[in-house]
Amino acid sequence: MPAEESEMSVSEAPKTGAPDLPARAAELLERLRTERVRVHAITNAAAQVFTANLLLAVGGIPSLTVAPEEVASFTSRAGALLVNLGTLDSERRAGIPWAIAAARAAKKPWVLDPVFVDASPPRLELARLCLTGCPAVVRCNAGELAALAGTEASPETVRAFAASQGIAIALTGPVDIVTDGSTTLTIANGHDLMTRVTAMGCAATALVAAFAALSPEPVEAAASALLVMGVAGEIAAEIAQGPGSFEPALLDALYRLNGETLRARARLA
Amino acid sequence: MPAEESEMSVSEAPKTGAPDLPARAAELLERLRTERVRVHAITNAAAQVFTANLLLAVGGIPSLTVAPEEVASFTSRAGALLVNLGTLDSERRAGIPWAIAAARAAKKPWVLDPVFVDASPPRLELARLCLTGCPAVVRCNAGELAALAGTEASPETVRAFAASQGIAIALTGPVDIVTDGSTTLTIANGHDLMTRVTAMGCAATALVAAFAALSPEPVEAAASALLVMGVAGEIAAEIAQGPGSFEPALLDALYRLNGETLRARARLA
Amino acid sequence: MPAEESEMSVSEAPKTGAPDLPARAAELLERLRTERVRVHAITNAAAQVFTANLLLAVGGIPSLTVAPEEVASFTSRAGALLVNLGTLDSERRAGIPWAIAAARAAKKPWVLDPVFVDASPPRLELARLCLTGCPAVVRCNAGELAALAGTEASPETVRAFAASQGIAIALTGPVDIVTDGSTTLTIANGHDLMTRVTAMGCAATALVAAFAALSPEPVEAAASALLVMGVAGEIAAEIAQGPGSFEPALLDALYRLNGETLRARARLA
Repeated sequence: MPAEESEMSVSEAPKTGAPDLPARAAELLERLRTERVRVHAITNAAAQVFTANLLLAVGGIPSLTVAPEEVASFTSRAGALLVNLGTLDSERRAGIPWAIAAARAAKKPWVLDPVFVDASPPRLELARLCLTGCPAVVRCNAGELAALAGTEASPETVRAFAASQGIAIALTGPVDIVTDGSTTLTIANGHDLMTRVTAMGCAATALVAAFAALSPEPVEAAASALLVMGVAGEIAAEIAQGPGSFEPALLDALYRLNGETLRARARLA
Repeated sequence: MPAEESEMSVSEAPKTGAPDLPARAAELLERLRTERVRVHAITNAAAQVFTANLLLAVGGIPSLTVAPEEVASFTSRAGALLVNLGTLDSERRAGIPWAIAAARAAKKPWVLDPVFVDASPPRLELARLCLTGCPAVVRCNAGELAALAGTEASPETVRAFAASQGIAIALTGPVDIVTDGSTTLTIANGHDLMTRVTAMGCAATALVAAFAALSPEPVEAAASALLVMGVAGEIAAEIAQGPGSFEPALLDALYRLNGETLRARARLA
Repeated sequence: MPAEESEMSVSEAPKTGAPDLPARAAELLERLRTERVRVHAITNAAAQVFTANLLLAVGGIPSLTVAPEEVASFTSRAGALLVNLGTLDSERRAGIPWAIAAARAAKKPWVLDPVFVDASPPRLELARLCLTGCPAVVRCNAGELAALAGTEASPETVRAFAASQGIAIALTGPVDIVTDGSTTLTIANGHDLMTRVTAMGCAATALVAAFAALSPEPVEAAASALLVMGVAGEIAAEIAQGPGSFEPALLDALYRLNGETLRARARLA
């Protein structure tokens, strides 16, 4: 669709000149496997194992340390940093600012997942402080976005918030919207069972971080990660008997995913 | 069996007038799926992921934050609170009393899982303090009950302890006993593989909490949860090759469980 | 091969008089199942669940508490202690020395897993302090060994470091080397998918600890554990579709493993 329609609808195609997303996602996935990208993930207690396993399944190398004495060492040798605000205990509170500082000092991208900021006022305040540290991407759901932006989530408010903050937002839901205010990509892949496994969104944000280590374009990195997750989720749902068997099937699907499958299954809304 | 026999045997039927447990359990399970009950779970590091996944599989919405600054917000918007004393670190010690206070202030039921109080004197002391906070249900095993009650666990001592504390006790083992001292229900469902997956009892207590959010009767809520777990465990064991495949199969079974299966398989000892 | 060749090659056979490893491993596994050995595991956040599930699958009983007030109680009633330095937060820092002291006081063996000491200077310093507490076995990879020993890992440097410290080293990689400087055993079993599941090495170290509780010979205990892990990994890989299905298949394989299979599949390099 022509570029002048790009502010109008969630289901728009990317702007003219926007990347061929399945091809770009396949390329990033291939590089991730070859280059074994390190991601340092400060993430919540429900997400640590699944995040590590997801990164390993796609060829990345995770580290998870939270302690303020250590996060800088781990972050500076990683390709990207993930900061997820779930189960925000005192150790995480102390470690997060040092990790962000280390990522910025090393000019590595970092990605924010403001889990449940809509449920906890002190966490929302901390998330707003984190935003001043220039994350490449914020991945969140509609409730979290509304809390952060102070207004209901809609394609328009998401774009406006992304533009005002100078960051990319990856808003996940039945249809994912990825935007920096000027380029907007949408992904309709995924499956309901993804909402029945804990930390699925958190792990998706880790994949955003891994791709951000490889791409200078935050919107492309985030949209590629969400496309990969959504397609793998659909493949896993075809063999799963429920959420229990869905989780290992998703990791298997990520491990085996290739560009041909991405291209065949991508639904860019 | 007549009510006058109700103090006599573990294998007694419920008192006359006691609920049709499989029907009540099916009803609670259906409401849990429809109402998407929130459970705030302060639980141990081995149990957090499985607890969250179990709650999601049955339609609940888990949150897991431990930090004292945040537990009150999460607890007051949940339908029930779980307090599990495993891996009791300083953050959990600090968060637990505020969560209990928030549950009581919001008149939400809360459920205690005194993991390993038989192994750690300071934890036993803390569990006793927790008991003064009026949990709706305490779910424990024989060793933990003995430590709490200061006497060997038997059907009689369990009933006496429950009555003296004014709470319901759900004592799990080969046969589960649920009692508040006057009503006693027993459940013989379950499978040995349930003892070979970590946090199985902890996750069962989270289901007790979810049902307690929906039922004013703690004995009914707890017995329904243990019946659901036991039946799902038996279904999972029929397809599992060992404890590894048992865990996802159990989550799948919980996701698909219906009233007909509960009724057909229930063994109320 | 004759004993005089024992310093020469990674692929050497054990010294004359060395145990029949598959038979010894089978015996230890059988005793672990019968005696339900307790292992207290202070381990990292990515490893806690898998470690507990692995210990349960082989018949052990795990506990995972980290808090300094409680680790001594748990350690002294366990058969062995595992200290893993991953996700080394302040609670773990505070708990580890008390757990080591309790193990030594109770004359129980303890095993060290110096995760990522090559990535964090303060962790390396702490690992060196831990070494002075006389672990029975240190299980690590080549990068961690190089950091600890201050020299590249090779069969010669590993033996020299083990001898100088008076401990057994279990160096894992494509071929595992277990040595106390005089006896050296090598194991070539295993599968690449083991590197795609988080905490695989950490959980292997927990099995080393469980076997160390049963055997007075640290080299035998460690080599038996790595043989068991490697064989179970190969069996799991035959049915796995990727790393997701590999993990439960590995636990199932461990649960069902017997001496006949160990003997038939052992490749002692």
